[in-house]
Amino acid sequence: MPNISMKMLAKELQLSLSTVSKVFTDSHEISEQTKQKVLALAKQLNYVPNPYASSLRKRKSKTIAVVLPDVADSFFSVAINGIESVARDKGYHVLIYLTHELLDRERAILSEFQSGRVDGVLISISNETTTDCHITDMMQRGVPVVFFDRVCEETPTTRITTNDRESGQLAAQHLIDAGCRNIAFLSISESLPISRNRLAGCRQALSAQRLPFGADNVVMCTDDEAENVQIIARLLQRPDRPDAIIASVEKLTAAVYLACKQEKVSIPDQLKVISFSNQNTAAILNPSLTTITQPAFNMGKMAAETLFTSLRKSHLPLKAETLVVPSTLIVRESTGK
Amino acid sequence: MPNISMKMLAKELQLSLSTVSKVFTDSHEISEQTKQKVLALAKQLNYVPNPYASSLRKRKSKTIAVVLPDVADSFFSVAINGIESVARDKGYHVLIYLTHELLDRERAILSEFQSGRVDGVLISISNETTTDCHITDMMQRGVPVVFFDRVCEETPTTRITTNDRESGQLAAQHLIDAGCRNIAFLSISESLPISRNRLAGCRQALSAQRLPFGADNVVMCTDDEAENVQIIARLLQRPDRPDAIIASVEKLTAAVYLACKQEKVSIPDQLKVISFSNQNTAAILNPSLTTITQPAFNMGKMAAETLFTSLRKSHLPLKAETLVVPSTLIVRESTGK
Repeated sequence: MPNISMKMLAKELQLSLSTVSKVFTDSHEISEQTKQKVLALAKQLNYVPNPYASSLRKRKSKTIAVVLPDVADSFFSVAINGIESVARDKGYHVLIYLTHELLDRERAILSEFQSGRVDGVLISISNETTTDCHITDMMQRGVPVVFFDRVCEETPTTRITTNDRESGQLAAQHLIDAGCRNIAFLSISESLPISRNRLAGCRQALSAQRLPFGADNVVMCTDDEAENVQIIARLLQRPDRPDAIIASVEKLTAAVYLACKQEKVSIPDQLKVISFSNQNTAAILNPSLTTITQPAFNMGKMAAETLFTSLRKSHLPLKAETLVVPSTLIVRESTGK
Repeated sequence: MPNISMKMLAKELQLSLSTVSKVFTDSHEISEQTKQKVLALAKQLNYVPNPYASSLRKRKSKTIAVVLPDVADSFFSVAINGIESVARDKGYHVLIYLTHELLDRERAILSEFQSGRVDGVLISISNETTTDCHITDMMQRGVPVVFFDRVCEETPTTRITTNDRESGQLAAQHLIDAGCRNIAFLSISESLPISRNRLAGCRQALSAQRLPFGADNVVMCTDDEAENVQIIARLLQRPDRPDAIIASVEKLTAAVYLACKQEKVSIPDQLKVISFSNQNTAAILNPSLTTITQPAFNMGKMAAETLFTSLRKSHLPLKAETLVVPSTLIVRESTGK
C-alpha cells in the first residue's frame, strides 16, 4: 500500500488541500462536521500526518536528546530507562548521543541542536568537559538543558545529582570503621564534580580521624581496562600498599578485582574494596562487592520530568538549582573481615 | 541572542527569501557568487537550517529508530555502541525506543514511524512478538527494517544474528565433556528464535550422546529476578536435581547464582553453570562464569551498515537473508572441576 498523503484525502473527499490541512491543525475555520469527515477517512486509511510538517507549524519537535558519555555502564543504562518511562508517557521521542568522554564530540553533537531538532536536552558531561560555553550557547538559542549526574556546577539551569560528597564520606567512614588506615581513591577525572565531590568527602572523613591522605592516595585511571589493571597492580606493589580501595566509578570495579587476582592480594583480608556501582552482579562477585548505589532510575526520571515541566509551560525558565537524590551504601563481603 | 532565521539572512543581504532558501538546497538556479555570500553570512551568524524543513524538502529525516526490549542488558547496550559508531560516521541521528518485552508497546512504537519520522528501523523484537504484521505493514509503507539478534524468521528483510543453534550445541557439549548428564535449560520465551535455536542446539548435542532431555529439563523464567530465584530454587530442590544449568540469556545469571547460594548448592562442584552473556563482570564472579559471548558490537554495527547501504542507494530493497556473526565460548571456573 502506498503512503496516504493529505492530497489523497482531499481528492477522495472533494475538499481543498488547504481545508484538509487545517483539520489537522484543528483550525477554528473548519466546521465540526468537516473535521469529523476528514478524521474518519484518515483513520480508515491509517493516515498519520508527517511529524516534521507538524514540527515546523508548531515549532515543536516532540523530541528530546539525551547526551551521555557511554551507554555500556549500568548507571547510564538504568537512567535511560527512567528517562524513557517519562518520555513515553508524555508522547516524546528520545534521541541518544554518546560522547565517549570526548569534549570535541560533545560540542559537535550540541551544535546540531540549535536548529529545532530537539525541544530540550538532558546531558551528563564527558570527563574532558571543563568549560560550558557550548552548553550555554545552546541555552541562549532557546534549547533548555537539564544536567544529570555529571553536571556543570556554574551553568544556570537545573542539575539532578546524587549526594556525591556525603557518599564519599560514607564510603571512607565505612572503611575506617572496618579498620583501614591507608585508603586509595581511584579517580577518572580531576575536573568532573562527581569525582571531585566523592574525593572531597573521602578526604573529609579521613581528616576528621587525623588519618593521612596525600597525593599518593589518589590514583588516576584511564578509559582502558587493561591499562587500569596495570595501574592498580603497581599500586598494590607499593611498599606501603593500601589496605583499602574506593573505586569512584563502576567501570573500575573489574580492573580492581583482576589486579588483585594478578598480584595475589586477597579481598577483603588484605585489601577492602568499595565501589560506586549500579551493577546487579555486585551481589554475586567473588567476594560480593560493597557498593555505593546511585538512584539511577529516579535521577533519569526526575531529569526528564523537570525538562518536560519546563517545556509544557512554554519554556518556563529552568531554575539554577541542584536537586539531590541520595545514594545508598550496601555492605557486602568485600569490606568484611 | 535570538535564533537566526532565513528571513534575517535575506533581509541583511537584500535578497529574496526564495533565493536564500534555494542556496540551502544547493539549487542550480543560484549563482556561485550568491551562494558564497549567503553561506559566509550564515557561518558568521551561526545559522543552521531547520532539519525538519530540510526533511520535508528531501523526504529524508536522517534519523533511524532502534527498537529494543531493554537497555539495561550488556548485549543491547554494547550493540547500541556499535550502531551509534556507524550512525555518527554517516551523519544519522538515533532514536531509542524500549518495548520492555511488550508486544502492544512494540506495535504502538512502530505505528509512529509510518509518517516520515525515521528513514529506517533496526529492531530486536520483544519476547511476546509472535506475528510480524506490524512490522510488514511498516515495511510496505516504505520504512526499511533490519532485524538484529531477536528476529522474525519469515519477514522478507535482512536479519543479523549470531549462530544461536551452534552455540546452544557448543554449550551443551562443553557440559557433557565436563561429565554432566542432567542438564537444565533456562528459557525466557517459547517463540523467540534465539530461545528456540539455542534450545534446539542443546537438545541436539544431548540426543547425539543418547542423553535424556525431556520437558522437565526446560524451565521457563520470567522478567522478575526475585521470581526467577524461586523458580530456580525449586529446580534445585527436585529429587533428580540437574547437574548443570544453561542460562539462555544474560539476565538469568544473577538469579542462578543467588538461587545456588540460597539452596547451598556449590558451583561448579554440585552444579555447573554456563550463560549466554556479554557482562564484563563474568570474569570476576564467584566462581568466574563460563559464557557464550555474543559479538554484540559487531552485530549492531553490521545491522546499521546494512540499513545505511540500503538508504544510500535510494531504498535499495533489503535482501531477505540472514547474516550470521559467530559467538564465542569462554571457559571459566563455573564449568570446571
